[in-house]
Amino acid sequence: MRAEGYLLREEDLLPLSIGAALLGTGGGGNPYVGMLRARELIRRGAEVRVIPLDALNDGDWVAEVGGIGAPVVGVEKIEEGGECYRAMRAVEDAAGVKVSAVISAEIGGSNSIEPIIAAAMAGLPVVDGDGMGRAFPEVQMTTYMIYGADVSPAAIADEKGNVVVFKQVIDMFWLERFARDVAVAMGAGAGFAVAPMRGDFVKRTAVPGTVSQALEIGRTVLDARAKRQNVVERVVATTGATLFFTGKIIDILRELTGGFSRGHAIIAGTGDWTGSQARIAIQNENLVLWIDEKPAVMVPDLIMNLEIDTGEPITTEMLRYGQRVAVIGLPAHGLLKTPRALDIVGPKAFGFPELTFEPLIAREIA
Amino acid sequence: MRAEGYLLREEDLLPLSIGAALLGTGGGGNPYVGMLRARELIRRGAEVRVIPLDALNDGDWVAEVGGIGAPVVGVEKIEEGGECYRAMRAVEDAAGVKVSAVISAEIGGSNSIEPIIAAAMAGLPVVDGDGMGRAFPEVQMTTYMIYGADVSPAAIADEKGNVVVFKQVIDMFWLERFARDVAVAMGAGAGFAVAPMRGDFVKRTAVPGTVSQALEIGRTVLDARAKRQNVVERVVATTGATLFFTGKIIDILRELTGGFSRGHAIIAGTGDWTGSQARIAIQNENLVLWIDEKPAVMVPDLIMNLEIDTGEPITTEMLRYGQRVAVIGLPAHGLLKTPRALDIVGPKAFGFPELTFEPLIAREIA
Repeated sequence: MRAEGYLLREEDLLPLSIGAALLGTGGGGNPYVGMLRARELIRRGAEVRVIPLDALNDGDWVAEVGGIGAPVVGVEKIEEGGECYRAMRAVEDAAGVKVSAVISAEIGGSNSIEPIIAAAMAGLPVVDGDGMGRAFPEVQMTTYMIYGADVSPAAIADEKGNVVVFKQVIDMFWLERFARDVAVAMGAGAGFAVAPMRGDFVKRTAVPGTVSQALEIGRTVLDARAKRQNVVERVVATTGATLFFTGKIIDILRELTGGFSRGHAIIAGTGDWTGSQARIAIQNENLVLWIDEKPAVMVPDLIMNLEIDTGEPITTEMLRYGQRVAVIGLPAHGLLKTPRALDIVGPKAFGFPELTFEPLIAREIA
Repeated sequence: MRAEGYLLREEDLLPLSIGAALLGTGGGGNPYVGMLRARELIRRGAEVRVIPLDALNDGDWVAEVGGIGAPVVGVEKIEEGGECYRAMRAVEDAAGVKVSAVISAEIGGSNSIEPIIAAAMAGLPVVDGDGMGRAFPEVQMTTYMIYGADVSPAAIADEKGNVVVFKQVIDMFWLERFARDVAVAMGAGAGFAVAPMRGDFVKRTAVPGTVSQALEIGRTVLDARAKRQNVVERVVATTGATLFFTGKIIDILRELTGGFSRGHAIIAGTGDWTGSQARIAIQNENLVLWIDEKPAVMVPDLIMNLEIDTGEPITTEMLRYGQRVAVIGLPAHGLLKTPRALDIVGPKAFGFPELTFEPLIAREIA
């Protein structure tokens, strides 16, 4: 592996977590506690280099890690910090390999930071990319899994010291089932590591550049706030997103079932959308946006809620009655929109048999 | 390990499974399918030697295996046969040891036969003993766990090829929780292997001689049937059990919750007990027997239902309205009645805070 890329600085963590919260499309968990853990490690001298996909050698082993559980639980059940690291060491043991880099399962939310903590603890670089370019609620929904990564060995670790290894698993749906059930037993929040992947496979299947993309979005938000600019407009301009709706949340249904937060939010239009109503379906993440009951954006494309005044991304567990939100949409990466990918992360896979994926068209980036 | 003991013959399997069904106190699963698997292996030439505890060397590693799940599921979800064997190999891998003998977690029901199948597949002997001298519904309820066996690594395997390893688990209650949840995900029936134990530990903590005891009980039942004797009387005489009640089942409540069969049976007295009513509480196994609402026998002592005419042991999943039963009780082994053991397998541990264990006194064996 070549020493390319850049070292993460302490001051990168806040913008990274803001950008990741946005790309999390409501999910991926709140990155705040993870950010504090990462900051502590960097302050104590840990060096984490962000390397481009190209820097991987074909034969390198790469660990994929991330938190698993219901984001809403993460608000009160504080991670210990070493969960993903211990899961990563357990898959190394089980696979009989040593990894030389860490990559995120999903860039969205806390899972942008978890690989950085594991990498800092292990003295390894983090790859600039992830398996979703956003967040999704289930284990099989990474580009790695979609394009044929080994399903086992995988491992899960909690804050108490328990480590469970999925030594041999017949397919990715079984892995999701086992991992979810153990994560629920662990209190609906745990660190997860999947089978180490070879560098050439990661280069072919990862969504590239998403750590840098999250950093860039976060820096834009912070810059706009500092300059008292309209944050939503700046985010839309930087990312090429489309503003789909503005309004006030008038109803929230959110249930914790089977280790997921499921539900919906209803938004009454304001401004240009006065008189209209939007609805967003949720399974940890925002899945589908309807405006006046017509589907406007659907998975795998990204649906993101920003607080209108501050531009703060609102994760699904933070949605509240009365919040004023801007709903923006962003096209997913092409790796998520092939027929093979849509079988796993398209609207039908999320329980909307009536919806056929209609891609959102990217706007020109300012 | 010394080559003592005796080779299991094909014709031993039927009496073994009858005796084990009785010692299962209603649980442990129906041994019939396992018996067919074991018979097939022995017919094909597998040799399984039953060795006494004394034959173990202190430094030998011993594998503890058994089925895990809800017995009622085993009636329809047929085991593939290699589940316990694969779980045993997975714990050997995880612990980095090779075992030289197999011992049962519980002699009761199908778990008398599971170690024989695993031993036959691995070419190993089976130790004459087990961790309960009966059957219990939960993982921590073995004498091994009660007296401090390592909790991890443990492993669980299903008939489809999935293998999950509990690599590091902080205590036996967490092991029960994880193993139960994964067993439920696997369809509420799977093979389980706990951390290999040293020979000296097994000699101190196993309930001795229970394979031979089950064989002896089964042979008595078959002999009594062949001679058209009263089977219940012969079983009582051979085992030192006490006949507590005879009657007709007039009500059954049985629910499958959390991977367990739970419920109760109500029995209207006949013969000497005409006018009385008995109630048996169930969690996979028979837990407490009340006669006219006064507790008569309670865990860990053994409560066993026999069909009056045939002497057939009735497992809890086979209880039916209208069956005529004899309820007999047998004292548990002393290892289950220490204060330390009663914390885990006494009536309070099973959710009867109002009951303080009153030991059943053994009758003289005829």
